[in-house]
Amino acid sequence: MKAEIIAVGTELLLGQIVNTNAQYLSQELAALGIDVYFQTVVGDNRKRFAQAVETAAARADLLIFTGGLGPTQDDLTKEALAEVLGRPLYVDPEAMANVERFFKDRGVPMTENNRRQALAIDGGTPLPNETGLAVGDAVAAGGKFYIVLPGPPKEMKPMFERQAKPWILKHALSEEMPIYSKMLKFAGIGESALETKLLDLIKEQSDPTVAPYAKEGEVTIRVSTKAASEREAMEKLGAMEREIASRLPEHLYANVDVPIEQKILELMAQRGLTLSAAESCTGGLLMEMITAIPGSSAVFMGGIVCYSNAMKEKLLNVPHELLEGDGAPGAVSAETARVLAEQVRLTADTDFGLSITGVAGPGASERKPAGLVYIAISRRGGDTAVYELNLKGNRDAVRMRSAKTILYRLWRALMES
Amino acid sequence: MKAEIIAVGTELLLGQIVNTNAQYLSQELAALGIDVYFQTVVGDNRKRFAQAVETAAARADLLIFTGGLGPTQDDLTKEALAEVLGRPLYVDPEAMANVERFFKDRGVPMTENNRRQALAIDGGTPLPNETGLAVGDAVAAGGKFYIVLPGPPKEMKPMFERQAKPWILKHALSEEMPIYSKMLKFAGIGESALETKLLDLIKEQSDPTVAPYAKEGEVTIRVSTKAASEREAMEKLGAMEREIASRLPEHLYANVDVPIEQKILELMAQRGLTLSAAESCTGGLLMEMITAIPGSSAVFMGGIVCYSNAMKEKLLNVPHELLEGDGAPGAVSAETARVLAEQVRLTADTDFGLSITGVAGPGASERKPAGLVYIAISRRGGDTAVYELNLKGNRDAVRMRSAKTILYRLWRALMES
Repeated sequence: MKAEIIAVGTELLLGQIVNTNAQYLSQELAALGIDVYFQTVVGDNRKRFAQAVETAAARADLLIFTGGLGPTQDDLTKEALAEVLGRPLYVDPEAMANVERFFKDRGVPMTENNRRQALAIDGGTPLPNETGLAVGDAVAAGGKFYIVLPGPPKEMKPMFERQAKPWILKHALSEEMPIYSKMLKFAGIGESALETKLLDLIKEQSDPTVAPYAKEGEVTIRVSTKAASEREAMEKLGAMEREIASRLPEHLYANVDVPIEQKILELMAQRGLTLSAAESCTGGLLMEMITAIPGSSAVFMGGIVCYSNAMKEKLLNVPHELLEGDGAPGAVSAETARVLAEQVRLTADTDFGLSITGVAGPGASERKPAGLVYIAISRRGGDTAVYELNLKGNRDAVRMRSAKTILYRLWRALMES
Repeated sequence: MKAEIIAVGTELLLGQIVNTNAQYLSQELAALGIDVYFQTVVGDNRKRFAQAVETAAARADLLIFTGGLGPTQDDLTKEALAEVLGRPLYVDPEAMANVERFFKDRGVPMTENNRRQALAIDGGTPLPNETGLAVGDAVAAGGKFYIVLPGPPKEMKPMFERQAKPWILKHALSEEMPIYSKMLKFAGIGESALETKLLDLIKEQSDPTVAPYAKEGEVTIRVSTKAASEREAMEKLGAMEREIASRLPEHLYANVDVPIEQKILELMAQRGLTLSAAESCTGGLLMEMITAIPGSSAVFMGGIVCYSNAMKEKLLNVPHELLEGDGAPGAVSAETARVLAEQVRLTADTDFGLSITGVAGPGASERKPAGLVYIAISRRGGDTAVYELNLKGNRDAVRMRSAKTILYRLWRALMES
């Protein structure tokens, strides 16, 4: 089964809103095992709408429309689709009663254009709107299936979930097997290096299929299969996961779609370990990422953004001779990174202390190039590990990669101990 | 001039990522006076890609592609477009040198598939990638214009702004009257309240036109006009800016597209003022936003993420009685916010000290509801201002709104003194 998602609305073409509906519906259709081959956005224009429908009907079996169901003249989805299908419209009595009730409850007179929100296509199944006024529609015509949904996500999502999905399962998908998938998450490795290790699996479109995709600062693999039962699917997915894990044992950190900081917090919480951090060039980014995870307060106690040298000396006891003077290593050095990690751990009285100090750029600092960063991990009763990084990219990229790298190193340290 | 935006990537069709590139490019093209009639998303499939290009070329003059420029076999945009246009590909020497330098700097061997990232279409203009590896392209062929951009927004946006836009202005828009625009930036006001104040200007499509511009956590208005000369345009834009400023004097903080933290740093640097911060529920977000601005070290000295109560006591001298015990105000209170702001200012020896303490959620804390946040601003030789916020939204939204609100209050304090 091939589907196309068609969003209708000039506000999308002007960039006033982002098309999150396409993402939601794509995910939902993928979960049903339906392939989405195209997403289209068209404005509130009858001729171009008809063009989009004709193009889509020629290449897809299931067309899902969002938007253009409101009361104004701009809202033309149902009229224009009815015209393309050569079917009349009628006022759906239940939907009309819903619209009338809405205005009566508020004591506001209903303007005539609101009748448009109760229009339905002859021969279709009106889809009730539980969170708004415009009724949706599901139509089977000429061997194709058409679903019409409202634009606002808070109306569209419940209508899809409770009305459209059961209709699709019953009418369009009655004979197909469902699809199951798992997300495998990797750290400490780039997308192309990862793909090189898995090239045979990706290329041969094995069952389960193995597909890479890039996410901001993360590398993820999606493993999918069609199966008659969840149990059968999980067996196949598990076998593929073990194969991939055996090729990348130092990089696969999760088989659900979570960031590495969440995985670290889970591991540390299980073991009753606590964490603190001292950040110079990242300025709070690392701690922000950690505390973005709900429940992080069980593990993460806090830390210090020691942006100036004075703060490094005063709050983290970095010796002045280390930071300044002829031949001093400087703030951006392995020595300073080590002191910062050890001192923040002692100050916060935690099991692990992290530090990042470097040159985020643009431009050099202490005659050191942008991208030179030192990170350190100090542990209670253990050695302090210090790493030198030479990172590429602009200020944002250097900061993000510094934070991601220390998280990867911390995860490795936890896995090895 | 009619344009179509074509995003390439199976991850979009699976709903793994949302197509924010289409929104960004639609806004940018609207600002150039170019009409976007369709947005299309197609997967990593050569046949369907060719279909999408043919459909688009039949109805648009300018085709902008995003995505599919990476090193993997899936990344087929340039090969597939070259095939449709009947032109060969070649390795762009500058782009290849950039790719090689990237791997050399890291001391990592370059895998052969990375050569793909340096491919360019014969007869086109390679668009350098300043924040990544894959080179873009601009091609004029058969009376149509084709622009090829990378998928990751942090590569796509600078390439559009610095490479593609000048190319479009020179080659595709050379005969049209240029469009000039200004971005007006607002803080401390929501989008709908702002629109209500400007509704007449937005609705009547005045000259200059006034259009709201959606951006993550910010409220922005774009004012645009077509004019024969820059001087004429600036006069018209300036008059409209003064009209808007007179309606929202307490909220318009800049007439260029900068975040409020940059404006604050500029104002403070001019006056020789310094800044520090203590963050509880935001966990470093505020400091991360401030230090993301290059040159922030002239003003921002550092601060403390006092996530646990122990850190609040130990590093910021919050009295134990304030935090715990029967009838104590607790960590989330006006009293604690005040102490945090004053103590971080004294510790860091800065002119201003900021603090944020609250319940980010999900769920309550200290029997206080998620969204209850206290912020404080302490100044050398002055009073400490404390504000209670009752914020809506999930954890991320509460954290972001807390940080944005204290930045707004700090900006107001600077403007009033």
